Amino acid sequence: MNTFGKIFRLTDFGESHGKALGGVIDGCPAGVAFNESFIQKELWRRSPGSLDNFSSPRKERDLVEFLSGVVDEVTTGAPIGFIIPNEDVQRDFAGEQVMKPSHSSFTYREKYGAKDNRYCGRASARQTVCRVVGGAVAKLVLQKYQITIVSETISLGVPAFEGDSVGAKVSCTIYNLPAGLGEPVYDKFHARLGSAILSINGCKGFEIGQGFEASAMCGSLYNDLQNPDFSFKTNHDGGVQGGITNGQPVCFTAAFKPIPSIPIPQECLDFQGNPILFTARNRNDKSVVPRVLPVIEAMAAMVTLDFLLIAKR
Amino acid sequence: MNTFGKIFRLTDFGESHGKALGGVIDGCPAGVAFNESFIQKELWRRSPGSLDNFSSPRKERDLVEFLSGVVDEVTTGAPIGFIIPNEDVQRDFAGEQVMKPSHSSFTYREKYGAKDNRYCGRASARQTVCRVVGGAVAKLVLQKYQITIVSETISLGVPAFEGDSVGAKVSCTIYNLPAGLGEPVYDKFHARLGSAILSINGCKGFEIGQGFEASAMCGSLYNDLQNPDFSFKTNHDGGVQGGITNGQPVCFTAAFKPIPSIPIPQECLDFQGNPILFTARNRNDKSVVPRVLPVIEAMAAMVTLDFLLIAKR
Amino acid sequence: MNTFGKIFRLTDFGESHGKALGGVIDGCPAGVAFNESFIQKELWRRSPGSLDNFSSPRKERDLVEFLSGVVDEVTTGAPIGFIIPNEDVQRDFAGEQVMKPSHSSFTYREKYGAKDNRYCGRASARQTVCRVVGGAVAKLVLQKYQITIVSETISLGVPAFEGDSVGAKVSCTIYNLPAGLGEPVYDKFHARLGSAILSINGCKGFEIGQGFEASAMCGSLYNDLQNPDFSFKTNHDGGVQGGITNGQPVCFTAAFKPIPSIPIPQECLDFQGNPILFTARNRNDKSVVPRVLPVIEAMAAMVTLDFLLIAKR
Amino acid sequence: MNTFGKIFRLTDFGESHGKALGGVIDGCPAGVAFNESFIQKELWRRSPGSLDNFSSPRKERDLVEFLSGVVDEVTTGAPIGFIIPNEDVQRDFAGEQVMKPSHSSFTYREKYGAKDNRYCGRASARQTVCRVVGGAVAKLVLQKYQITIVSETISLGVPAFEGDSVGAKVSCTIYNLPAGLGEPVYDKFHARLGSAILSINGCKGFEIGQGFEASAMCGSLYNDLQNPDFSFKTNHDGGVQGGITNGQPVCFTAAFKPIPSIPIPQECLDFQGNPILFTARNRNDKSVVPRVLPVIEAMAAMVTLDFLLIAKR
Repeated sequence: MNTFGKIFRLTDFGESHGKALGGVIDGCPAGVAFNESFIQKELWRRSPGSLDNFSSPRKERDLVEFLSGVVDEVTTGAPIGFIIPNEDVQRDFAGEQVMKPSHSSFTYREKYGAKDNRYCGRASARQTVCRVVGGAVAKLVLQKYQITIVSETISLGVPAFEGDSVGAKVSCTIYNLPAGLGEPVYDKFHARLGSAILSINGCKGFEIGQGFEASAMCGSLYNDLQNPDFSFKTNHDGGVQGGITNGQPVCFTAAFKPIPSIPIPQECLDFQGNPILFTARNRNDKSVVPRVLPVIEAMAAMVTLDFLLIAKR
Repeated sequence: MNTFGKIFRLTDFGESHGKALGGVIDGCPAGVAFNESFIQKELWRRSPGSLDNFSSPRKERDLVEFLSGVVDEVTTGAPIGFIIPNEDVQRDFAGEQVMKPSHSSFTYREKYGAKDNRYCGRASARQTVCRVVGGAVAKLVLQKYQITIVSETISLGVPAFEGDSVGAKVSCTIYNLPAGLGEPVYDKFHARLGSAILSINGCKGFEIGQGFEASAMCGSLYNDLQNPDFSFKTNHDGGVQGGITNGQPVCFTAAFKPIPSIPIPQECLDFQGNPILFTARNRNDKSVVPRVLPVIEAMAAMVTLDFLLIAKR
Repeated sequence: MNTFGKIFRLTDFGESHGKALGGVIDGCPAGVAFNESFIQKELWRRSPGSLDNFSSPRKERDLVEFLSGVVDEVTTGAPIGFIIPNEDVQRDFAGEQVMKPSHSSFTYREKYGAKDNRYCGRASARQTVCRVVGGAVAKLVLQKYQITIVSETISLGVPAFEGDSVGAKVSCTIYNLPAGLGEPVYDKFHARLGSAILSINGCKGFEIGQGFEASAMCGSLYNDLQNPDFSFKTNHDGGVQGGITNGQPVCFTAAFKPIPSIPIPQECLDFQGNPILFTARNRNDKSVVPRVLPVIEAMAAMVTLDFLLIAKR
Repeated sequence: MNTFGKIFRLTDFGESHGKALGGVIDGCPAGVAFNESFIQKELWRRSPGSLDNFSSPRKERDLVEFLSGVVDEVTTGAPIGFIIPNEDVQRDFAGEQVMKPSHSSFTYREKYGAKDNRYCGRASARQTVCRVVGGAVAKLVLQKYQITIVSETISLGVPAFEGDSVGAKVSCTIYNLPAGLGEPVYDKFHARLGSAILSINGCKGFEIGQGFEASAMCGSLYNDLQNPDFSFKTNHDGGVQGGITNGQPVCFTAAFKPIPSIPIPQECLDFQGNPILFTARNRNDKSVVPRVLPVIEAMAAMVTLDFLLIAKR
């Protein structure tokens, strides 16, 4: 289903090469100052450009238009509808019939009876523009609580040839979270956060606090002890204990696989199962970073706000 | 909230030292042969005993009683209620007022106004008996589809002193899954699976397929190519592409922190904030493995069945 | 699905002739004084007895046992598990193979492949014991807000022969509700309330305020005008405008069909489709009233509390 | 919340006087022929015009534009986004500060802190254009199962003066439903259908089958008996028994209050509580019929399809 969240909810639509993407943000509290230029800037953080060597030269202006839910630049509590028109891009018609390797081509064929890659437009990373809009609105609400979210690239994979794509590891921290957010059993703070991050295109791993390193540690060195003011001496748990935030920063790391489109020939199948040699055009990014950073922050912002609104009941 | 799943749903209750734990399994299809002895055996896989050096000597017989939803040893489609009475255990009264390190004591105090550790009984690993019951029922349904789930311990942490607890890394594989399970955007197969695994007590990391290793790779070596019969030459993606299963085994790994209860003195606070030196009694397990294995499989089974039932609509 | 509510949620199980009914109350706030004897008394309001001419002589002691979620007679925020054992009743074996008229026999056969009426035990009015437990807990929370709920029988149907069953019309009022509860579009206060009441066994109609009479009125006489203190001069809308409570009492009426079990022969089919003459034993109630009154109040209480908890976020 | 449905889900946004209304239809199966002109015609059934004496002369062309989820006029399984731009209407500025009688003005002020009627645009009947779009798409799917839905006006209220508004009673029948749809306890077919109908602007009552008349009947005359082919001799239950469809037509009736805007002066308050004499402009409809008929059918279609998709799992 194409809805994210329980109280603060983003429902979105749209494909990479359709007329427009867009969505509905439901459950945003009334009375929030709606800073449209902040939202647009968050979108531009995700847009390709001259940001660095890893971004594609493709132009996506990504202008968002809001259609409801705001009066006099303040939210009313009604659902916020928005659209982001797609620019008139030159379609990669050659690739439409190719079952691209490590893409969704085959799985969409199995699930939806997809006849070509036009059916898979929903699986494009372009969908993440909607996540960034939802996350930017969430950040506007979180600002009232001085909660901030910062992400950064930790490491990159090693290319095997010139023009190869690479994987990436990214960390992110949520600062100034109150203690007491999250649910104790199935809906633990880091469980839902993990799901949110793992739902980002290409994400293959998630860890909180010491994460996989914790599996090689012992309790006497791992345990986070407290000071008399209830603050913590260490933060190996990454700000979550028993599924609930403890007031320390929530720190997590995510692993992304290499972008599967690469500009060298690969032996593939078409949708009918015929072998075909496929070379992706070189307009794609070589890594999800840095463009994925605002997407990660957006997901973290929506999860955080959702738990915050649940806790306020 | 204490419900897991969307179509096949487990809602459970109970604390470590209360009268009983139990729950309701809703959405189980009618007409499934209800093999109670299989379910009981799954529970005993989780029970402490003489299994190995890492399990505690505490006796928990964990006898499950089913109260509804089954006629003539076949499910009727009605909700399946069950209870698991707690044995009469000797309470660790000394620890009731201690805010145990890296436990839920502090976070429950912040969230629920917990006055002592009796409020935190819900955070005990004892709650996982309910998960195992739900997972065992899910496995009974999955047997009709020849889907099997196998987990194993990969590595353990290194103790710093005799009696110390250690972390653990565990892998799990779901075999014989059909292609086409999972939702494309927010409810990707591995995103919900990740959330399910991360919700297990002490879990701090989750990865699918190559996981964190993928972040160090390049596309030309990572991409999974297909054979003419649509099978795959490699399985770096761990059986999920674009959030949807591709018919390959789903392989994932999880990281668990060391069990926080250790038999050496630690400087803690009590619920009022007074410093206190706390030494856990030595009846606790030293690691979550091997007892966590049936819990991991149970969560994987429930996630798999849920997506299977969704796909059949 | 067998769950009711969004924040305050009752998930229950059990059949009329099984070992026990029971359920899980999830989302109850921590810190509520848990008056068990009040809950038991609510259950006894629903139990058959010598209350009046319309109740059956069958003995159901309906003793509820709580298993979790309460410490020192105060709720902890953890899920509240409960069971209500069934007394050892004499089964109506003769009726097991009869597809009873205007019952669920046929529809359960179509939906679940039911082979006899044991599959239909979930459709028995006995299930409402769980609703009453959930509603009684909700009432305990609502007492903090001085919200009270009162129901009464308005009218009864006319029997065609001695021992015939009759329909009933019931009204109910929720007093002291704050303004602002309910959601504006699909989840209007009276829409969810209506669904809750219509879900009670035998309910065939629901109206709020003037209800069906409103369809025969005109705007100039119907409109509720306000006093300078924002109170209302009339309450034709029954306390809800635009789907949201306006601070007036919420008044609604419900219609119940005659209980379908009657002690005269009726031409029925059995589960294989063979004709059979069926006469229900005369131990059944003749009307849903007065025993349905605490059930109606229970559903109203759970809906009200749920909207109240949603509004508090 | 602004989402309707569980599997087939409509999430919509938009106010009466904003730029546009629109929404996302999620969960529509792949492979459905997407007949846009049928959808547009359904919208025009709801549009005001020269249909009869009860419709307003206001022009709303209600042109819907689809933005995603369809390739080559066939649904892909991806969410279907749509917008319906608002025409440039002359705002009723005079009424913005008036707390209109029996409207949502006061309740939105209490719930959202609405400062004027612009906040209440979500409560306008104009929102129902989105319901009609969702319902029309549902009807396209239901056509594959030969399920049809027909509604008609039963009666109207009596005006007290020339230009007065009146209430209306409407009936609706769903034909050719299979037996076995609906859930047995809380999510009974007619309970969710009732909620859907009661959520329509101005609806104050819902009944199924004999409805309120059933409350005056007796069991010996009410019970629906079956023929040897499992069909029914009568349909007093309105096609639903035990919450589940029995294969008979589902018949229900709904009561609507008079439209509260009337062209005579009424003593009202403004948002600050000052008394004000308010006369609505005479461009409004005098009754919800006939324009509400396609809205009723739309809600019935979405409920029916949702239960159908749930049953197919």
